[in-house]
Amino acid sequence: MTDNTFEKLTLLGLGAMGTALARAWLAAGHPLTVWNRTPSRAEPLAAAGATVAETAAEAVAASDLVVVCLLDDASVGAAMADADLTDKDLVNLTTSTPAQARVRAEWAEKRGARFLDGGIMAVPPMIGAPESGGYVFYSGSRALFDAHRSALAIPAGTSYVGEDPGFAALHDVALLSAMTGMFAGVSHAFALIRKEDIAPANFAPLLVNWLTAMAPYAYGTADHLESGDYTKGVVSNLAMMTEGNTTLLRTADEQGVSAELLTPFTTLMERRLADGHGDEGTTGVIDLLIR
Amino acid sequence: MTDNTFEKLTLLGLGAMGTALARAWLAAGHPLTVWNRTPSRAEPLAAAGATVAETAAEAVAASDLVVVCLLDDASVGAAMADADLTDKDLVNLTTSTPAQARVRAEWAEKRGARFLDGGIMAVPPMIGAPESGGYVFYSGSRALFDAHRSALAIPAGTSYVGEDPGFAALHDVALLSAMTGMFAGVSHAFALIRKEDIAPANFAPLLVNWLTAMAPYAYGTADHLESGDYTKGVVSNLAMMTEGNTTLLRTADEQGVSAELLTPFTTLMERRLADGHGDEGTTGVIDLLIR
Ligand SMILES: NC(=O)c1ccc[n+]([C@@H]2O[C@H](COP(=O)([O-])OP(=O)(O)OC[C@H]3O[C@@H](n4cnc5c(N)ncnc54)[C@H](OP(=O)(O)O)[C@@H]3O)[C@@H](O)[C@H]2O)c1
Ligand SMILES: NC(=O)c1ccc[n+]([C@@H]2O[C@H](COP(=O)([O-])OP(=O)(O)OC[C@H]3O[C@@H](n4cnc5c(N)ncnc54)[C@H](OP(=O)(O)O)[C@@H]3O)[C@@H](O)[C@H]2O)c1
Repeated sequence: MTDNTFEKLTLLGLGAMGTALARAWLAAGHPLTVWNRTPSRAEPLAAAGATVAETAAEAVAASDLVVVCLLDDASVGAAMADADLTDKDLVNLTTSTPAQARVRAEWAEKRGARFLDGGIMAVPPMIGAPESGGYVFYSGSRALFDAHRSALAIPAGTSYVGEDPGFAALHDVALLSAMTGMFAGVSHAFALIRKEDIAPANFAPLLVNWLTAMAPYAYGTADHLESGDYTKGVVSNLAMMTEGNTTLLRTADEQGVSAELLTPFTTLMERRLADGHGDEGTTGVIDLLIR
Repeated sequence: MTDNTFEKLTLLGLGAMGTALARAWLAAGHPLTVWNRTPSRAEPLAAAGATVAETAAEAVAASDLVVVCLLDDASVGAAMADADLTDKDLVNLTTSTPAQARVRAEWAEKRGARFLDGGIMAVPPMIGAPESGGYVFYSGSRALFDAHRSALAIPAGTSYVGEDPGFAALHDVALLSAMTGMFAGVSHAFALIRKEDIAPANFAPLLVNWLTAMAPYAYGTADHLESGDYTKGVVSNLAMMTEGNTTLLRTADEQGVSAELLTPFTTLMERRLADGHGDEGTTGVIDLLIR
């Protein structure tokens, strides 16, 4: 473990995220080789102690552990087209879809590398700041993850979610998708009060506390999916919630706010209710989403 | 204040919520007169010490403080058609829209009553259980609220949000609308992992922690609305988030999940971006919702 503290590594990609990662590893004392397509972005890191490689292939050759953080999956293939990946441990922190990550894992393995995919649940200012709560989902080679765990834990917390190389991206995307729904709800809520004499700064803590109190609803949903019984522990059932939705939609109309962010979910609730599931919670909506 | 502890009150409506309210006031020692359209629902409360009135008018006559918790606004008008409201303090806990609450306040004032509207942020099991975190938004007569504060605080916490009688309903609906968005996001997230070898019970805590960590995003939104500067403190801007959305939508497609719960928000983000606001966060979406 003490050897690992100063494990040598290579990083390809010095955009906003790559630069933050590089600074975290350098600050921790890791010997670091970097490469970026546009060489000027490497200059401040050279000043901070990084070795700058002329080509991606040269950077890859410099370390057993190679971390990649480029724009998208296509840029990963492009940047490493000429690199020799034999016996390399390749960690791909470039955002991709689960399917892209699975194909990229096969690509890496065919070229002789072990592969770990990562999904970064943080923005650059949270990197190297453990108290920020940022972390990275990892999936793919467990052996790779275990071998480099202490180096990987430097920039942000780690959460290993399975051997399937697509799982890190899937967890990443699922959480960001849920957040998108929450942001949509938050936007609608602020729109409702926008023209009223209600200060957004007074309203925000009420909203944040409420969402925080209601987020654990997802535990009940998980329980439904695990047991197959979608009525378990339901207090406000679909019949009551659908009735309540009429007040939400009517209020949007009164306030001159488009209900477009609410209606897709209320429509699915109504469909599930019409299918005879008024005694359930909202879990059945999930089944309606799956083709 | 000590007199108030045992203040006499009347409650109209003994559905699931009304019954929970009645039990909380009785348990605290308040003399309580109740009325319900269907008399049989009052029987268990009579056994617990409540006085049961034959008619709503008689129930209203019994106390200065009259609380109403009926199905909807129309049932409030119907139930109290013959009641003398002169000098009564009327607290309406029936769910209504802001406009309905405003009209109901005028109706009550014309009949000689002071009026306070309430929006209950709790389900019946949370009533009389302070540790549950349930509370009621109140708006309308501040004098009424102050006069009966200790009695009103028995069933659940209280949050007074202004003299405008529509504000309690508006806060209530705004928070429930935001929650609807969050539930939509949660549903989409579970749909994405539904056919994978990922246990919902393992996924749920990741989701709950993430949503809890991201809920304070609403403080930034409030700050934007207060200052008018929608770029303030933005780390992931609209251009980056819109780019990220393509990964979310592509993943939904890969996983065989309909993106209908995500697309209304991503479409609004794209519209705002196309209007030249790529350096903002998502706050501008709020303006697009307002007619
Ligand atoms: N920033 C965040 O908040 C955040 C959060 C979570 C995840 N991520 C993910 O982290 C990754 C990097 O993000 P970032 O914010 O650092 O992006 P960025 O600032 O836009 O940097 C993009 C990087 O990719 C390189 N690149 C693009 N196309 C390339 C190609 N064809 N060949 C070689 N290099 C290429 C760029 O090189 P040049 O300098 O030569 O253009 C640059 O180093 C992305 O997948 C992103 O989704 C970012
Ligand atoms: N339950 C919750 O989780 C919850 C949460 C927040 C807010 N609320 C609000 O609290 C209020 C009551 O909810 P609840 O759950 O108690 O509903 P409920 O169980 O359906 O009870 C409805 C009550 O309204 C009465 N009623 C209906 N129409 C009437 C009419 N025309 N004239 C006189 N009485 C009439 C019913 O009397 P009968 O017994 O004669 O039918 C019953 O007492 C609603 O506005 C609801 O939105 C409920």
